[in-house]
Amino acid sequence: MTKAEHPRASGRSPRGGPPAWRGVVWPLLISAVALGALIAVLGFGLGTPEDLPGSASPDAATGGGGTHPSETILRVTCALAAVAAVAALGGRLARRLGQPPVIGEIAAGLLLGPSALAGLVPASTEVFFPESARPLLSLLAQVGLILFMFAVGSEFDVAELRRSGRVVGVVSQASMVVPFVLGALSALVVYREFAADGIGFIPFAIFLGTAMSITAFPVLARIVQESGLARRPLGTMAMACAAACDVIAWCTLALAMAVAGSGGPWGAVGTVLLAAAVTVVVLRVGRPLVRAAERWADRAQVPVAARVVFLLLLAFSLARLTDVMGVHAIFGAFLAGLLVPHRPGNRMTAVQTGIDSLNRKLLLPLFFVTVGMTVDLTAVTGRAGLLLAGVLVLVVAVVGKLAGTAVTARSAGLPWRTSLGLGVLLNARGVTEIVVLRAGLEAGLINQNAFTVLVVMAVVTTVMTGPALDLLKLSHRRTSAAPGAETASPVTGEAKEKELV
Amino acid sequence: MTKAEHPRASGRSPRGGPPAWRGVVWPLLISAVALGALIAVLGFGLGTPEDLPGSASPDAATGGGGTHPSETILRVTCALAAVAAVAALGGRLARRLGQPPVIGEIAAGLLLGPSALAGLVPASTEVFFPESARPLLSLLAQVGLILFMFAVGSEFDVAELRRSGRVVGVVSQASMVVPFVLGALSALVVYREFAADGIGFIPFAIFLGTAMSITAFPVLARIVQESGLARRPLGTMAMACAAACDVIAWCTLALAMAVAGSGGPWGAVGTVLLAAAVTVVVLRVGRPLVRAAERWADRAQVPVAARVVFLLLLAFSLARLTDVMGVHAIFGAFLAGLLVPHRPGNRMTAVQTGIDSLNRKLLLPLFFVTVGMTVDLTAVTGRAGLLLAGVLVLVVAVVGKLAGTAVTARSAGLPWRTSLGLGVLLNARGVTEIVVLRAGLEAGLINQNAFTVLVVMAVVTTVMTGPALDLLKLSHRRTSAAPGAETASPVTGEAKEKELV
Repeated sequence: MTKAEHPRASGRSPRGGPPAWRGVVWPLLISAVALGALIAVLGFGLGTPEDLPGSASPDAATGGGGTHPSETILRVTCALAAVAAVAALGGRLARRLGQPPVIGEIAAGLLLGPSALAGLVPASTEVFFPESARPLLSLLAQVGLILFMFAVGSEFDVAELRRSGRVVGVVSQASMVVPFVLGALSALVVYREFAADGIGFIPFAIFLGTAMSITAFPVLARIVQESGLARRPLGTMAMACAAACDVIAWCTLALAMAVAGSGGPWGAVGTVLLAAAVTVVVLRVGRPLVRAAERWADRAQVPVAARVVFLLLLAFSLARLTDVMGVHAIFGAFLAGLLVPHRPGNRMTAVQTGIDSLNRKLLLPLFFVTVGMTVDLTAVTGRAGLLLAGVLVLVVAVVGKLAGTAVTARSAGLPWRTSLGLGVLLNARGVTEIVVLRAGLEAGLINQNAFTVLVVMAVVTTVMTGPALDLLKLSHRRTSAAPGAETASPVTGEAKEKELV
Repeated sequence: MTKAEHPRASGRSPRGGPPAWRGVVWPLLISAVALGALIAVLGFGLGTPEDLPGSASPDAATGGGGTHPSETILRVTCALAAVAAVAALGGRLARRLGQPPVIGEIAAGLLLGPSALAGLVPASTEVFFPESARPLLSLLAQVGLILFMFAVGSEFDVAELRRSGRVVGVVSQASMVVPFVLGALSALVVYREFAADGIGFIPFAIFLGTAMSITAFPVLARIVQESGLARRPLGTMAMACAAACDVIAWCTLALAMAVAGSGGPWGAVGTVLLAAAVTVVVLRVGRPLVRAAERWADRAQVPVAARVVFLLLLAFSLARLTDVMGVHAIFGAFLAGLLVPHRPGNRMTAVQTGIDSLNRKLLLPLFFVTVGMTVDLTAVTGRAGLLLAGVLVLVVAVVGKLAGTAVTARSAGLPWRTSLGLGVLLNARGVTEIVVLRAGLEAGLINQNAFTVLVVMAVVTTVMTGPALDLLKLSHRRTSAAPGAETASPVTGEAKEKELV
């Protein structure tokens, strides 16, 4: 998409007024600060964690007074607003630096954690992740994650994957296998440092291999778009490879979860077979059913609220299903997304886009903050062994993905520069990696230190993509802009802004 | 608003297809049932109430397994969907019977409670208000109530109230004072039956007077619209009177709360003075501030998510403020609504309308269910004293409001039929009464039995409005329809349907 098609997305308002990012950040910050002051004056800050939402039960209602649901509601909303404001600020800053906004949002989450702000000013945690509202905020972060994976699934283009040719098939497999094998081998070295207590070597190695071979499809898509590669062979090829990688990576991640969770090889086999069967049934049976329901809903003019409920139930129930099966809730959410693919002009897609837009701005940042709260860089920097392991992981990840992809692409007949470009693009790991790491941490596959090191790896590999493309002179920002478009700085984001009307 | 302007709101799809209500009810019901079966198969139904959301905290995340946030999320969403579906069904049925939909929604909430379904099939509570998800559902119900009051405040037209003439001033005061005095007097009789333990006579009498003199502005507005009175003197006069009544009723309710909560006459005086001061400050200082922020947000093209957060923070913080002050959270929400009045074509109003639309369909029904769970008709019908007290309350409420208004209007120079019509219209109590009663129950002013009896009174007085207007031949449904509009049955709602795009 060129700039000319998205005049509003140029980072400046059309009339040449103040930059549009002010519009996002300041009202939230101002209102958060103003309300924070108001609340502090009212002595609102010092509630007990126990009396969270339980007080609102109808049985207790007649008791009168005591605890206040209005306090919980306000607390959660304030934390949500503060987190969203900081994430928006981070996203805008990242865009100014020529990085995808999501990097800034993740960085904002990390900076709020014990690595920076919470380490320096422990009281800040009470603003961004208050103790008493934490259960509810964590739940909302989980909702944000599920809805994000739901959107990723919706945007996933199965048809395009089928259309892509032999080169894509070979390259994507190699760009998956090389880092996977290297990652699994490096597990031999870092097992003692990085594996969670009581986890076997096999699931740990599968997980580490998966973590190394992830490609962030959503972030990649945005980078491809922003660097003007969307309509060039390199761009479409990278997207197709990334999609194929995504599918394989989800499968190996599910495998690692199944092996770790089922306490035995037969249990793992059973879980994998069950997961495969559920996936096939959901896609074969569910897709036409959902499509029929969708058509019927259009005919019967089903209102928005019912559509919202339908989509939420679909995403949450499949997420719950895969969670119960012993693979992570994210798989079910992704599967649910495959059932409701985005269609331009479709009414259901409009509702989905609206949910996704609000989710990315409000709930997903909460997920980044929960990640940031778990990442503690200060715990890693002090220990030489961990640092070395971290460097090893980073080198293996970059070399495995970048070199593995580039060499395969070159031997499949692509020119060197394009092959390297493909490697650079597929090396971006972005949010997908963070989601996978968080799932591994929750499933007890890796420990906190491994999580921290791997999150850093994810951020570094994503951040290096833009500059590396510039270095290879593969970025086509200016040439892709339609004639007549203002010659704005390439770093002010040209990404499409998803917006509710 | 005439039918011709709202072709979609006629209850039938424009092409003469199946009635539109099927579109709301069936997908929700079908998906709820299908998912219920799915969940039952997965053995999802039997969680422990303790492990609610707390498990999702990041400290516990590394533990792995154990409890599942995805379960809580799905449970809450399922309950929400089930309640919304039943409420939508009730609303549509009520419309078919010529009643405002909100009556059906309230009735649905009551029928889910111990009076009917929960009394006959106790297990049904696990579907509509499951034990383990109850804290969160109650919290969401509270959010629904606050957002409802916020919307009521936004739709409240202060300017129209100022414009209305002498007759309105006299009639509204009389239509308030007569039932208030009668209600306060009847408190002498029912104090022993209806007052909560430990509550003094004065606050109880003030509350009962208030409960008698409530007029439901939102329901009234809808009835006026649906009976084609919106552009006739009777309609506008009734609306103006109701608005004035609303203001007075909120004041006396706040007074009752203050007297009950502050434990002494001086405390009550302090609370009342504080509440008055806060109201004046919020309206005088806050209104221009919010208006300036709104204009600036339009100029800076602030995205929807930020506007949503801003509106939620405004509503929740003022709700919290009045809650802390010892009057109920609903006052703050109403005040917050006054700060952001609806303006046609305004972008903030569009966002507000979107929030309100989703809220009325999803969260407010939860509030009706929490009301329904507290109302137990079977506990009342068995006892003669309670029944008598209930009849007394009903008679006093109807006679006080209807006769009081009609006589005053007649003596102010209006013809008899119009005067009676005004009385009939102002006698509708609707949701406002339910909100007030719930607040009184929570503040420990009335007991459960009084709550039940007064809820019945609210429903009866609202239900009788439509038929009474028909009896007086004051309903102008057909004459108000624009020429060319199809001659649909008057009972299929002509009310405007608020919809997100």
